[in-house]
Amino acid sequence: MTRRLRGVLAPVVTPFKNDCSPDAQRFVRHCKWLLAHGCSGLAVFGTNSEANSLAADERMVLLEQLVEGGVPAAQLMPGTGCCALTESVRLSAHAVKLGCAGVLMLPPFYYKGVPDEGLYRNFAAVIDRVADDRLQLYLYHIPPVAQVPITLPLIERLLRAYPQTIAGVKDSSGDWGNTKAMIDAFAKQGFDVFAGSEVFLLRTLRAGGVGCITAGANVNAHGIDHLYRNWRSSTAETLQAGIDRIRQILQAQVSMIPALKATIAHYADDADWVTVRPPLVELAVEQRAQLVRELIAAGFDMPGLRGGSIATA
Amino acid sequence: MTRRLRGVLAPVVTPFKNDCSPDAQRFVRHCKWLLAHGCSGLAVFGTNSEANSLAADERMVLLEQLVEGGVPAAQLMPGTGCCALTESVRLSAHAVKLGCAGVLMLPPFYYKGVPDEGLYRNFAAVIDRVADDRLQLYLYHIPPVAQVPITLPLIERLLRAYPQTIAGVKDSSGDWGNTKAMIDAFAKQGFDVFAGSEVFLLRTLRAGGVGCITAGANVNAHGIDHLYRNWRSSTAETLQAGIDRIRQILQAQVSMIPALKATIAHYADDADWVTVRPPLVELAVEQRAQLVRELIAAGFDMPGLRGGSIATA
Repeated sequence: MTRRLRGVLAPVVTPFKNDCSPDAQRFVRHCKWLLAHGCSGLAVFGTNSEANSLAADERMVLLEQLVEGGVPAAQLMPGTGCCALTESVRLSAHAVKLGCAGVLMLPPFYYKGVPDEGLYRNFAAVIDRVADDRLQLYLYHIPPVAQVPITLPLIERLLRAYPQTIAGVKDSSGDWGNTKAMIDAFAKQGFDVFAGSEVFLLRTLRAGGVGCITAGANVNAHGIDHLYRNWRSSTAETLQAGIDRIRQILQAQVSMIPALKATIAHYADDADWVTVRPPLVELAVEQRAQLVRELIAAGFDMPGLRGGSIATA
Repeated sequence: MTRRLRGVLAPVVTPFKNDCSPDAQRFVRHCKWLLAHGCSGLAVFGTNSEANSLAADERMVLLEQLVEGGVPAAQLMPGTGCCALTESVRLSAHAVKLGCAGVLMLPPFYYKGVPDEGLYRNFAAVIDRVADDRLQLYLYHIPPVAQVPITLPLIERLLRAYPQTIAGVKDSSGDWGNTKAMIDAFAKQGFDVFAGSEVFLLRTLRAGGVGCITAGANVNAHGIDHLYRNWRSSTAETLQAGIDRIRQILQAQVSMIPALKATIAHYADDADWVTVRPPLVELAVEQRAQLVRELIAAGFDMPGLRGGSIATA
């Protein structure tokens, strides 16, 4: 865990077979497609991966299958934050042993309104118990879903105690003011701030952040990466508007994860991709058709997914 | 799973050693004390048990240790609802095999705003995959914490599809109107409604519910059971006021779970009981002292805990 990831990372959607068991083959294939089409890293087992709908053992097996399947561990930042400290430790230690670039860690999210002291103890205990200098820990702030925030004072305390381990944050608050405050407070100390959505990418880079880890990268990695590589150019605002439009179409659906899977199913011509685990529900046929119509009308494509995804399998 | 549990059930607090590992010996001891002092059943691995702060494997091992330690499986209703369907299935099948009276099941609680259809699929898949007629499933409605509700239409649909398996609900909404609506709608079909707090016990029994599954029973099982056994008597209102007063003292603390553990630590004269897992934080010394002062001033006691808890070990 020496080279820091930068740029565009996808919280990779997890493909399931009809019986809702994870489909490792499709997963490897999609990860390779993402790395070949704009992603510099893969935040597997994030919110959009339905990671919390997977047992810890299922996550560990899938991660091993990715690495065995040829996805470089140095480009992986798996989610390893669970409600149970013991499980966060187990998943994080496993990721470090596999050589992953970092881990993206949710706070324990069952109890609400817990004190920062308790959250500090959770992260500190994970670091102390994993006890491996290679661990690079990225904090995952997503209050709309986890309902448990990672505050600036908590980050400050963790950075002071573990300056070599606390590597950055994914800010999925949807609140640009918060992202900017994180950058302003900690970026100079080598704390890498990733926007949680591509709609904040240009602002994040201009302010001193390092990229984005975003659902949209599952389908539009190439578009988002194009902005990432050209953010200082005169076309940056136009590129930002372009990726915003695609994001808007995806988000207009009742639920982002089924929309992403439906998009992949269409462009890969692989209907099984639509499957989600309960409590999520796949898009209805008419919703899928409308989504695809809008994406096509916006000139969106996933180049090489059909042929490419099979060719690289 | 033939005889239905009724009366007062405790979501038993889980004792930890100094290193936060589960303490099976103290756990068995406290479970036996509870069954000897008013509890008709034990809803181990509930919210107050810090169940979601335990890995699935830790829960399974502890449950086996309880049964091996002499706690009757027929009086156990372990929590088995996880974010991951596969884990809910695994824990539920394990509980059924051990002979537990039932399971108390949270909805998958990571994703918010999910449709009832997705929650229905989750519970239906658990029942279909456990595939054991002995399974008695109690739904766990606790929107203040889980943030994912179990609605009346969802209960209706589940009852229609699985009338032999869907056994009841714990309503921890804190909304008496909702508890009453559940009783009015489903009690006649043999659907057992438990209040989620002893403050609703008298109203629940009068309306046709069957008891309560409540944090307070961890320390005041005897008081709550006294009301349960005398709810038709002329003293019922006075008994309700008495248990309300103790609940009020416990709840006045910053956090209920540390308050329960501090209370047990005091009355058992066993300081290690105060330990909680992150993200929870134990009460400060002064908070503990104040809590105990107030309980003593209210005439509260945990009879036989000191001697009894050791004698039955």
